[in-house]
Amino acid sequence: MNLLRLGQLSYLWLFASMNEPPIVSTVDQPGDIGLVEWKDYTSQEVFTFECGSTLPGFTLRYETYGRLNADRSNAILICHALSGDHHCAGIHSMKDRKTGWWDNMIGPGKPIDTNRFFVICSNVLGGCQGSTGPSSINPETGDAYHLDFPVVSVRDMVRAQYRLLTDGLGLDTVFAVVGGSMGGMQVLQWGIDYPHVVQRLLPLATTARQGAQAIAFNEVGRLAIMQDPDWQNGAYPVGEGPRVGLAVARMMAHITYLSDEGLEEKFGRSRVPAAARDLFAAEFQVESYLRYQGQSFINRFDANTYLYLSKALDRFDLYGPDGRLEDEMQKVEARTLVVGFTSDWLFPPSQNRAITHALLRCGKDASYAEIDMSLGHDSFLVHAPELYELVRSFLS
Amino acid sequence: MNLLRLGQLSYLWLFASMNEPPIVSTVDQPGDIGLVEWKDYTSQEVFTFECGSTLPGFTLRYETYGRLNADRSNAILICHALSGDHHCAGIHSMKDRKTGWWDNMIGPGKPIDTNRFFVICSNVLGGCQGSTGPSSINPETGDAYHLDFPVVSVRDMVRAQYRLLTDGLGLDTVFAVVGGSMGGMQVLQWGIDYPHVVQRLLPLATTARQGAQAIAFNEVGRLAIMQDPDWQNGAYPVGEGPRVGLAVARMMAHITYLSDEGLEEKFGRSRVPAAARDLFAAEFQVESYLRYQGQSFINRFDANTYLYLSKALDRFDLYGPDGRLEDEMQKVEARTLVVGFTSDWLFPPSQNRAITHALLRCGKDASYAEIDMSLGHDSFLVHAPELYELVRSFLS
Repeated sequence: MNLLRLGQLSYLWLFASMNEPPIVSTVDQPGDIGLVEWKDYTSQEVFTFECGSTLPGFTLRYETYGRLNADRSNAILICHALSGDHHCAGIHSMKDRKTGWWDNMIGPGKPIDTNRFFVICSNVLGGCQGSTGPSSINPETGDAYHLDFPVVSVRDMVRAQYRLLTDGLGLDTVFAVVGGSMGGMQVLQWGIDYPHVVQRLLPLATTARQGAQAIAFNEVGRLAIMQDPDWQNGAYPVGEGPRVGLAVARMMAHITYLSDEGLEEKFGRSRVPAAARDLFAAEFQVESYLRYQGQSFINRFDANTYLYLSKALDRFDLYGPDGRLEDEMQKVEARTLVVGFTSDWLFPPSQNRAITHALLRCGKDASYAEIDMSLGHDSFLVHAPELYELVRSFLS
Repeated sequence: MNLLRLGQLSYLWLFASMNEPPIVSTVDQPGDIGLVEWKDYTSQEVFTFECGSTLPGFTLRYETYGRLNADRSNAILICHALSGDHHCAGIHSMKDRKTGWWDNMIGPGKPIDTNRFFVICSNVLGGCQGSTGPSSINPETGDAYHLDFPVVSVRDMVRAQYRLLTDGLGLDTVFAVVGGSMGGMQVLQWGIDYPHVVQRLLPLATTARQGAQAIAFNEVGRLAIMQDPDWQNGAYPVGEGPRVGLAVARMMAHITYLSDEGLEEKFGRSRVPAAARDLFAAEFQVESYLRYQGQSFINRFDANTYLYLSKALDRFDLYGPDGRLEDEMQKVEARTLVVGFTSDWLFPPSQNRAITHALLRCGKDASYAEIDMSLGHDSFLVHAPELYELVRSFLS
């Protein structure tokens, strides 16, 4: 009872840090998770990357919401996409204008219900939001790793998460692994590499291998970064770097996360109101929107991490040399629901169906759901009642 | 007969410059147009742009193939796309490895048959291949126009072409205007602005207004150029300029000219053979292909022209303020065939159909043909027997 006297801010802060499920009526918006805080897990054990390089250890920054139950069986791991991070729900301070990136999905009474589940999300290995990555300090040199950071793969990201969950959080079972886009690749890799740990897989808007068009867009983004003089062959001072190149890469990528129809609905040919302007200022609303996306991204993201993670995406390929997906899918034991979105042209429905069909051909417990939404690849991140119901049912 | 003694090169050169239809058996490949040369038309009359600015005159560089008939009724104007030019068929020298950009379509016995038609193609106003544009010398300053060049619109391009055809070539009727992409926009504008001059319109893979997604891609390309330090606010020395930014813009745009399926068929995940390489060298064939596209583009294209022409595309909008296309389409008198391509996601079939439907609602003689090809927007440029037959029939 004395907690209430500390005022709302401290109350919520404490509540979140205790991993107690918040009581709906105590937060401003019923169902919202409220204040949360991140933690760091550090492994002191040598980590050998798929490429053969090693690190003496690594740190993963993560958040948890909800409470682990007595038999430690209610953990759900959320895997983030290329530009995401560990902060997927709630707010870090009452001043935050934005919640975590999947706050609409995760929280008390939400589809990923923190009243029922212990939800974990970590910034991936190679990331730039607190986990060990190219901008972390290399203890051998005292400077950032820059391009000396080992080549990181989706499989490496998953293996680091496995250490966090087992060594860091003492889990030996994971009820579900959930994620979209690059997060969906991690979900698939979890099912393949730890079939006896994870019970359910929920990959969304993803692919079992990066296609040529997606590689092409990533390559243009990488060149935009690498050809910015401020990139300095990757050795820019941490916090600085190729801001222009990174913004261009982000703006282009952002178009691929949306859809022709979605952009048409949202912006069409609406113009920016302005009395007089030069020819190449932002004239259309969609231009202004993209410029904002580019600007806000460079304030929170590291260019080398962008290079490394986009490369990990491009190299992701669960198909065997004979073009068969079954050899890898055969390893999965978890019940799987794959979700594709009609307007996603980055990882189109056909690529999501292909995952499901390969699982089914292997006799696995797999379903495919296709949601008719117009917002493109990012459909999995937005308000989508049909998706909410699917997720809720699949996790129940 | 003495022409033959000059050797094949001179023979063909003279032949082409005389606008005689080449005799098939005299060229290496039967049906090819062989050697051609460009000419310049200069108008000394003041040209007032749609934006209100004026130039004391202008030059259009152009080529012609085939011979104008006695009643001057067999002219076909070809309009080029953003990155195209006046050189759409034949070769300029026996050393040329590449023919003009639509050589598969234009020539003796080809769908646009130079044995029957007098074919004209000019580099657009604002271009950089010989026509007056931002890199041309401003007689008032002795330096290039740079950003002092007037804002050019598709309508301005068409009006300049009209002067070339009427004043320069003495035509008062044009049998057909043909073009894809930005060329298709010019075709539509020709039909609207000169309904009593042009008899047939053949726009391909185009749109009556640039949509939000296409604007978005153009904007990222422009920013890539403008944020390259070598752009120097547009005032770079002619022949130099923001090569890196222009290459990035071109590479990104090039992806939008192709298709997911086309890239998958052509490249898939094929890798570049290499013993050892650094992480961010071109690893996949599609990356190497794109880098080549970017490199070759910067050797032939001016960055300011890219900015101006992409802006003209973005501002192109035949819809009225009430969202109706009919007010403009009502003006068309020419017989029209619109051609869309199933895999074109830059100017998708729906946008091409919309043009046709508006013409039909106005009671015009219009048809729509949709060709099932997997190569995306650039389908109109490649070998396409179904398209050839359509073009041949429409022009017969």
